[in-house]
Amino acid sequence: MTKARVIVTLKNGVLDPQGKAIESALGGLGFAGVAGVRQGKVFDVVLEETDPAKAEEALRKMCEQLLANTVIEDFSISIG
Amino acid sequence: MTKARVIVTLKNGVLDPQGKAIESALGGLGFAGVAGVRQGKVFDVVLEETDPAKAEEALRKMCEQLLANTVIEDFSISIG
Repeated sequence: MTKARVIVTLKNGVLDPQGKAIESALGGLGFAGVAGVRQGKVFDVVLEETDPAKAEEALRKMCEQLLANTVIEDFSISIG
Repeated sequence: MTKARVIVTLKNGVLDPQGKAIESALGGLGFAGVAGVRQGKVFDVVLEETDPAKAEEALRKMCEQLLANTVIEDFSISIG
């Protein structure tokens, strides 16, 4: 079994209204000095594959086909 | 300025229908050997605070008050 964490974030320059809303809500709660918030997604994936290189290759394909929209999102994969 | 990443994940034992749907969709796309998927959220926060300890303390409060539902979610903070 291989445990992996995939993090999908919006590319720089892509508008993030959800992040802006959180930033504004934090201000409303009295948190000063918040210069920016961007929200992304995290996927904790467990694979039966035990070879880390093969697992990473499979995860890369999963990101390209389903987990991330590579037009507007970047993804990073960390194994283990 | 301090850059921080906050990761919010469902606690163990909390049902994650979104993760189950992704797991099923990956199977439908032909990815075999996916033993589990859990989805969480990531927040990239930029704070004006420069002291890492104070920044982490502020982020902890933000998680408790807004970013995470601590009844069903865990959060982790990494600075820098």
